[in-house]
Amino acid sequence: MRHMKDAMSARAAGGVQLKSADVTAKHWVLGNGELMANRKTRDDDYKVAGPGLERGALSVPGRAMSYQSIVHLSLDAARAVCVVGVEIGLELSGCAPHKCTSFTISSSPRVLVNIPNMVPVTADKEGANTQLLLCESMDVLVTMTAPSPDIGEDKVSVAYYLPDGEVPVATAELFLTGLKVSLDVDINRSGQVEVMNDKWAKKNWVWGPSGWGAILLVNCNPLRGINNLLLISQHGNEEAFIGPTTDGKIQDVDKTKVFLFEADNSGAFDLVLGPGWHTYTFAPLESPKESLYVEATEFPSANLSGLVSYSVSLVEASENTLIPETLVYKDTVVFRVAPCIFTPSTQMLLEIYLCRELQVHGFVKTVTELSEKSNSQVASVYKDPKRLGRWLQDEMAFCYTEAPHKTISLVFDTPWVSNLEDFPMKYSLSPGIGYVTQLTKDDKVITMDSIGNLMVTPPVKVKGREYPLGSILIGDSFCPSTEGRDMRKDLRGFLYAQQVRPVELYSDWLMMGHTDEFMCFIPTQVKAESDKGFRLLLASPRSCYQLSQEKQKEGYGDMALFEEVREDQLLSKGREVTTINQLLDNDIMRKQNDYVEKCINRNRDILKRELGLLERGIIHIPQLFCLKQLSNMPSAEQTEKLYARPCFPNLLQLIVMGKSLGIPKSFGPGPQIKGTCCLEERICPLQEPLGFKCTFINDFDCYMTEIGRPPPALCL
Amino acid sequence: MRHMKDAMSARAAGGVQLKSADVTAKHWVLGNGELMANRKTRDDDYKVAGPGLERGALSVPGRAMSYQSIVHLSLDAARAVCVVGVEIGLELSGCAPHKCTSFTISSSPRVLVNIPNMVPVTADKEGANTQLLLCESMDVLVTMTAPSPDIGEDKVSVAYYLPDGEVPVATAELFLTGLKVSLDVDINRSGQVEVMNDKWAKKNWVWGPSGWGAILLVNCNPLRGINNLLLISQHGNEEAFIGPTTDGKIQDVDKTKVFLFEADNSGAFDLVLGPGWHTYTFAPLESPKESLYVEATEFPSANLSGLVSYSVSLVEASENTLIPETLVYKDTVVFRVAPCIFTPSTQMLLEIYLCRELQVHGFVKTVTELSEKSNSQVASVYKDPKRLGRWLQDEMAFCYTEAPHKTISLVFDTPWVSNLEDFPMKYSLSPGIGYVTQLTKDDKVITMDSIGNLMVTPPVKVKGREYPLGSILIGDSFCPSTEGRDMRKDLRGFLYAQQVRPVELYSDWLMMGHTDEFMCFIPTQVKAESDKGFRLLLASPRSCYQLSQEKQKEGYGDMALFEEVREDQLLSKGREVTTINQLLDNDIMRKQNDYVEKCINRNRDILKRELGLLERGIIHIPQLFCLKQLSNMPSAEQTEKLYARPCFPNLLQLIVMGKSLGIPKSFGPGPQIKGTCCLEERICPLQEPLGFKCTFINDFDCYMTEIGRPPPALCL
Repeated sequence: MRHMKDAMSARAAGGVQLKSADVTAKHWVLGNGELMANRKTRDDDYKVAGPGLERGALSVPGRAMSYQSIVHLSLDAARAVCVVGVEIGLELSGCAPHKCTSFTISSSPRVLVNIPNMVPVTADKEGANTQLLLCESMDVLVTMTAPSPDIGEDKVSVAYYLPDGEVPVATAELFLTGLKVSLDVDINRSGQVEVMNDKWAKKNWVWGPSGWGAILLVNCNPLRGINNLLLISQHGNEEAFIGPTTDGKIQDVDKTKVFLFEADNSGAFDLVLGPGWHTYTFAPLESPKESLYVEATEFPSANLSGLVSYSVSLVEASENTLIPETLVYKDTVVFRVAPCIFTPSTQMLLEIYLCRELQVHGFVKTVTELSEKSNSQVASVYKDPKRLGRWLQDEMAFCYTEAPHKTISLVFDTPWVSNLEDFPMKYSLSPGIGYVTQLTKDDKVITMDSIGNLMVTPPVKVKGREYPLGSILIGDSFCPSTEGRDMRKDLRGFLYAQQVRPVELYSDWLMMGHTDEFMCFIPTQVKAESDKGFRLLLASPRSCYQLSQEKQKEGYGDMALFEEVREDQLLSKGREVTTINQLLDNDIMRKQNDYVEKCINRNRDILKRELGLLERGIIHIPQLFCLKQLSNMPSAEQTEKLYARPCFPNLLQLIVMGKSLGIPKSFGPGPQIKGTCCLEERICPLQEPLGFKCTFINDFDCYMTEIGRPPPALCL
Repeated sequence: MRHMKDAMSARAAGGVQLKSADVTAKHWVLGNGELMANRKTRDDDYKVAGPGLERGALSVPGRAMSYQSIVHLSLDAARAVCVVGVEIGLELSGCAPHKCTSFTISSSPRVLVNIPNMVPVTADKEGANTQLLLCESMDVLVTMTAPSPDIGEDKVSVAYYLPDGEVPVATAELFLTGLKVSLDVDINRSGQVEVMNDKWAKKNWVWGPSGWGAILLVNCNPLRGINNLLLISQHGNEEAFIGPTTDGKIQDVDKTKVFLFEADNSGAFDLVLGPGWHTYTFAPLESPKESLYVEATEFPSANLSGLVSYSVSLVEASENTLIPETLVYKDTVVFRVAPCIFTPSTQMLLEIYLCRELQVHGFVKTVTELSEKSNSQVASVYKDPKRLGRWLQDEMAFCYTEAPHKTISLVFDTPWVSNLEDFPMKYSLSPGIGYVTQLTKDDKVITMDSIGNLMVTPPVKVKGREYPLGSILIGDSFCPSTEGRDMRKDLRGFLYAQQVRPVELYSDWLMMGHTDEFMCFIPTQVKAESDKGFRLLLASPRSCYQLSQEKQKEGYGDMALFEEVREDQLLSKGREVTTINQLLDNDIMRKQNDYVEKCINRNRDILKRELGLLERGIIHIPQLFCLKQLSNMPSAEQTEKLYARPCFPNLLQLIVMGKSLGIPKSFGPGPQIKGTCCLEERICPLQEPLGFKCTFINDFDCYMTEIGRPPPALCL
């Protein structure tokens, strides 16, 4: 287990690894005709703001009182185990000889005695020890400050006196064994394990800036080590058990593992708790501290709350088989499993991956040129031939997961075919990149389950509330109906469980049903105080009609959409050359686009409200849609319902590369006037004030080929 | 469906039924040798304080902005559907004729027009209509105040003017159809459905005094009607769909049902949404309001969040098959399913049920006498001979569930045998009493799953925080170990899901593992400001030894435990006569009871901390335990581990009946001095200052017979 050793040396060399920039340095874009971009993870952390949990910060009850046990003194010697730092109460009037009215108390140096309301009776002759009034309801509190070197090595002595007596008539002795047991985590989210005596705080987990509680990372790649720390220290001759706590909040302890570094210096880690291993017994430890390594094996989901709790229990052995062992102390810590966080398109681009098999088209050429301008790397990746989908962003997303001590980039893969034997993509990833699979089930609403139907907004502040991880936007049928296509329940449950403020949009009116067909986000280069730091781009048929009307008025009515595209290309994509006059005369198409406009407006309303956007935060991009029945459906499932698809290469499927925007070339509608497309001429002035240079990617086939995921009938 | 009709007439007669005293008037106690008490439900409600949710009140983001859609005017007449109360924006510069710089706007009386930053150009000659400056970024907001009588009956007209023109050069007309659609619930927890325009508030549910959101009752008895209301109003010619919303928070819509009252006056209710029925289409409604009746069919559990959400969507039909219907408006409401609430022993006793088959013992006689004193009814119930358990409180609990409009008493039944064909108990219940079953699975930790291992604390305030429903106390093994017995996961999940602040106690040291063997609560009759209103009674072996020592010193060392019990009775229960001297000389028994004392102290510490109890809130009741291996176990599962059981009738298993306490008679240890047992003499002064009169129930057999649940080997 070499990786474990590596993790260990890293720890030995530099302590707990803090969130480091180099983890996010290796990034990639995969593409086949379309681009995907993995983005720099955002700078916020749990400590600063916490994920954009809709429910808000939780109120915090006061700290718990200390864990107090009572020991009754006895004139026969009594014995007790005392956990360092934990107060115990002494009851000393019960064994006082008859008529005794005062006492003196003394202890060994590791023992602190505190009597809050003591009443002195006489000053001790030597000035060292004072007789105190003996009463029944007296609080005598004892705390140990350090572990005892051996059993019973510490002591509290109480001497009892008759009224006016100067010599004690009896003495009670309590022999104490001081032990130290503690289970500790990075409760303050500082990246380092902190020893914390507040038991109440340790077993609670609170979101937000004033919250606390450790973050547990999911180990997405079993070959790359364990990434969380847990610390136990114990001293003494007693046994300690560690195990997951079983309260109702902890939904599946089988989804976590705990490892112990082997004492034999072999560099290996032993699994001590995991699926089916729910308890582990420590023999008395040789070292004063023992580090445990914890990992989650799954992200939170509909059936996994994400809260994981462990406890350590100290058990006092018994000298006699007729008397059971006694539970002396129990310490509990709770983790929250870090969410899987998607990156928005507004984050800085780090690296671009292009598909090896992709032929040299306009697409590849332009993207390569843009990458040079934006100083981003281009890498080629191997495209799995067994994957049926052509649009990789429909089945994969670049994500990351983050704890204060570490950030892990990962690929969230939802392959469309469930009978793939292997996932070659997994093995083409850079080292250190995690990999998470969610198999898509055979389902008639399969296209709504696509990762392409998800988008994540940039970080946003709405009505005074920060959402540093943005919102996950989920395309939905929106209206309860028998025909409606919705995301499947478990995937939706997974997205909600990440607690990154899910917002549902209406995307079922689109043939492929994906949000990325009508909207995207671009960053603004100049950030003003009142500026959100991004713009929402929305497809606008209305804006396209307006442009066409203007051009008609200017006398270009006979100019045509797709004039520059080869006839065989048009034929194969089911499109045809259309003049501006024909377009404007087509009343059905106009009404269909009015309908599309209303559908987009519905989403605009939601986005304005949920993101606190003003109209000036939105840019309307001319785009036309045509309505068709779902194709390739089994005839039994074919309905009359019409769905929208883009008429020409979808301008919304642009890519942000530094200060460049790579926008699909639309090939119309409208004329090339002095060598410039009038639609491009309309779009550029919308982007340029934001600091962007628009580049139009001339690749009709690439953008018009097999839009979205084929229906399931073709998948199997 | 006669019950539905009844529910309807009740509604017609008196509106929504408010929480009524008579619902809680029929109560019962079932018992066989031991008593159970159903208690008056507590007076708190969701509005006042909410259940004792550990996570605290949630912060509330500001109200959502109004749902705003944009309509572009056109010189050809435009049409739009407008939901009453929902603002729409008009874009009117797009269709303005060239060079026009001002406009006038007018509307029909049901339409309100608001132009926040309007710039008047000229005053209208007749003083009625003013020309306004036309500019591109102008906000023109339109709201309808009432539904339109027919399609397009309402109108906004805009006339455009050239500079200094007095006659409009063009007019744009927008024909509006005002519709009213709303889904409403008892959002303010007042017991009545309230119409609420704040869409954001309706789809959120917030705990606590400043929270809101409707409560959904579980219908525990399908023969007794539906208990929640939901209201939809719609006006116009469009279709409306209703269905459960499908966001990730809603975990199982198949656990709820929605009914519609039949319009034909048949008095029947139609199921419109339920398991497998996820959408319902309303034709345009005849009446302006339609009442829907909602019920949950299950309480929240590990797999059921308890949040249920419904939405209604208004869809605008299309004149043309080539243009799809348009979603105009969507309104969503959310419910939280009311928890199953257990009653604490400190609540007022209403009625006592005694088992019919029970022979006349000291137990029945004394309980009957006490009931007369405390003015509580005694009823006889039929004991199911097929139930193997003898202690009914181990398999049944009296509970209630509550919404602002209704409280339902119910029996939570967890029969030990899964092959019971019928549950006769269900049919012996009073009318109006709900019934909930949770079958206990065949499991080796079966005794920890017993309802007898649960207790609920009285309402409590801890560190300034109110827990009006108290805390559910759950007995647990507490220490991760292979031998430990824990409550099964689904039952624990169920208890946590009720959100009544679960607290786990350590009870696995007891043979039966039930919390009721070492603790109970009694109310205090006089409630001072600083008083919690109850006392915690804890078993105390130490206190029992102290008493014995005192009596030995007083010369009663030869007096015996169980002196009054017949020899055959003792023999059959495995007990024997023991003198005080023998008891005090038995060193093993003393050490075993020291161990028991430590186990109880562990719980005392937890209870003090979690309930904010002081030492003076605890009463220590003398009780001795003896340690044995588990009996009746299959030999393969038999372990060496020793478990505690009471030596003599367990004083903690007392019953509170008005101002009387019915306490099991211990039959020692210690002498009958002048006809009074010295243990009784010790206990009475502890209770009497609280206003209680102690009565000791003389029934050795009854309390010592088959303690707790037999192990599963005997069950099947």
